[in-house]
Amino acid sequence: MARIVQKYGGTSVGDVERIKRVAARVAATRAEGNEVVVVVSARSGVTNELIARAKSINAQPNDRELDMLLAIGEQETIALTAMALHAIGVPAISYTGQQAGIVTESMHTRARIVSIAPVNIEEELRKGSVVIVAGFQGITAGGQITTLGRGGSDLTAIALAAAVKADVCQIYTDVDGVYTADPRVVPDARKIHEISYDEMLELASLGSKVMQTRSVEFAKKFGVVFEVRSSFNDKPGTIVKEEVASMEDVVVRGVAVDKNQVKVVVSQLPDKPGSAARVFKALGSAGVIVDMIIQNVGRNGVANLTFTVPRDDAHRSEKAVADVLAELGGGKVQTFDGIAKLSVVGVGMRTHSGVAATLFTTLAEVGANIELISTSEINISVAIELDKADAAARAVHAAFKLGA
Amino acid sequence: MARIVQKYGGTSVGDVERIKRVAARVAATRAEGNEVVVVVSARSGVTNELIARAKSINAQPNDRELDMLLAIGEQETIALTAMALHAIGVPAISYTGQQAGIVTESMHTRARIVSIAPVNIEEELRKGSVVIVAGFQGITAGGQITTLGRGGSDLTAIALAAAVKADVCQIYTDVDGVYTADPRVVPDARKIHEISYDEMLELASLGSKVMQTRSVEFAKKFGVVFEVRSSFNDKPGTIVKEEVASMEDVVVRGVAVDKNQVKVVVSQLPDKPGSAARVFKALGSAGVIVDMIIQNVGRNGVANLTFTVPRDDAHRSEKAVADVLAELGGGKVQTFDGIAKLSVVGVGMRTHSGVAATLFTTLAEVGANIELISTSEINISVAIELDKADAAARAVHAAFKLGA
Repeated sequence: MARIVQKYGGTSVGDVERIKRVAARVAATRAEGNEVVVVVSARSGVTNELIARAKSINAQPNDRELDMLLAIGEQETIALTAMALHAIGVPAISYTGQQAGIVTESMHTRARIVSIAPVNIEEELRKGSVVIVAGFQGITAGGQITTLGRGGSDLTAIALAAAVKADVCQIYTDVDGVYTADPRVVPDARKIHEISYDEMLELASLGSKVMQTRSVEFAKKFGVVFEVRSSFNDKPGTIVKEEVASMEDVVVRGVAVDKNQVKVVVSQLPDKPGSAARVFKALGSAGVIVDMIIQNVGRNGVANLTFTVPRDDAHRSEKAVADVLAELGGGKVQTFDGIAKLSVVGVGMRTHSGVAATLFTTLAEVGANIELISTSEINISVAIELDKADAAARAVHAAFKLGA
Repeated sequence: MARIVQKYGGTSVGDVERIKRVAARVAATRAEGNEVVVVVSARSGVTNELIARAKSINAQPNDRELDMLLAIGEQETIALTAMALHAIGVPAISYTGQQAGIVTESMHTRARIVSIAPVNIEEELRKGSVVIVAGFQGITAGGQITTLGRGGSDLTAIALAAAVKADVCQIYTDVDGVYTADPRVVPDARKIHEISYDEMLELASLGSKVMQTRSVEFAKKFGVVFEVRSSFNDKPGTIVKEEVASMEDVVVRGVAVDKNQVKVVVSQLPDKPGSAARVFKALGSAGVIVDMIIQNVGRNGVANLTFTVPRDDAHRSEKAVADVLAELGGGKVQTFDGIAKLSVVGVGMRTHSGVAATLFTTLAEVGANIELISTSEINISVAIELDKADAAARAVHAAFKLGA
């Protein structure tokens, strides 16, 4: 008997028939003798519908009230999933984030999980019930409903898997697993069977879209082994776990392209000590995650600063920077679209050389100009023109022999 | 400065524009210097949609899960209403039933309020905020989400008005107030300006549809003066309060017709001591409220029992009775549609005679057969054929000179 946490995303519970299919899969897992905790998202589209309705009433809805509103999406699916299990004779009970004991910080719409007290869950598992938990939501110590932001349901699943000491956490989604590249762009991309947390982290943060960084970080921190797999077939997916020695045999595990960043250029920043720090501090306070950064050395008492941020944060970052510039008494900020970030990732880079050379040569061959570069121990990323991104991804994928 | 509880029903918050109109009315009330607590229902249609979705997954959804599901309807409107108030510059905060401190018993889908601890509400009122509370829902001492059943939002408003010692409770709905009869059936029906709790109770229980009995009972018990009025105009509505002497000048306050009952006939019930008691005990345990009752004296060791129940409870009551009959070893139960209950109500009946004579004569004149009769100090009700109900209502309304 194993204890399994299964998470089903919005498309997997998108309508009544799909919810029934989820129930059948959960029932089958339980019938094999496992204890099952299920985490579900809102039906696909519901969260966006609710946001649209909110914005038709108030262009900038209050974050606390937005959380109050958005939390209903998952509350619907947990109840329907429980009913679907009852309909096929499986004992089941649904819990909101609060009832599941998920306590968060109070930063609405992007709250962090502080602790999980799975008292109710453990009790129901002991009774033999399937426990269905609303993803994406929690409660502050003061009793306010919060949501966890993008990818919040994955985080709920991973965090619950840690809290109930699950043997495995299965993330059911609309893709088969993690690929060496986006198969829609790179036709010979292959599914990766096993990947380390660090590689997955780089791929997640670099835009492979399968999962958000913080869920993978959480899994790494608490040693939660998880599998990304499809809810529409029975194929094994990609297992994400601690690095093992054999993983280093592969120099590059995958190629990721992120088209959801914009470039922010701060020009004529007064070149005083701490100017740049104040810019980044303001961005941090505004909750913006800054990615690739270049600072040009100051000349005539001013400096230029270029960095990328997620497109959704463009307005927020421009405002935060403008406020700092006003205080500093100079400089201007502009945002540019039309870039893409391409990255190669692999723990093998630590022990193999020549990756950068191959990457840059290949990009030159397809005529892609490199605007920014950033590197880590296991990844090299470049910002290039958006319209060169797909061709570049195919060429790089081939250059590192990632195809089938 | 007064403290006012305003309750807006499903049609009043039916769409985005209507929610904005509710916000404008709340803002105007606050601008007059009042403290305002707002109770809202789910948007009209939402609860039924959710029930239909549940039933497409499970024909008999579990009550706990149904409450989990239905509670989202009000959670949506409280958040949207708060956003609408923010949009016009009014500080406001929304609370679920739980956050408002509404504790109920654990009978799901029809829970009773046990207590209200309006700590959060008082704190926010002190800060000058409008507090918006989800109607229809509460939480058990054990943390389970419950709903209060039909008319639950009215009950929330009345109970909150008592808990926060409001000066008045305004029930905004899609009708102007309480009428001497249903104006769609009786064209010269008049709006009643003031009515006693007892008269309102009889009208509510007799099907005038404006409010559920238990909300009025709650108001009477705690002395909550409330006004039923329209959210679509500014006309004064009907004030419901403790009886005053002048109310007795009117013999009949109004005529009500209830078309939502069915007749249950238990025939050949073994005529042992306690047989009827067991039938009604079983109905009570099943949560069915039995209305008009006739028992025919036993003959040949069997008796007949006829009573009416709300149509929605027909299946439940038939099942409950059948179980008892099986234990008693005899008798059969049948349910009949096609009846209506017509009632005349007025505190003046206590001191005026001849009401029954006028009623029965008038019914005879329109050819309506009386199948069952029940009376109280301030009401006489008869079950007649459904297809005679409207003509009978008009004739009775005229006979008691209730028209304009």
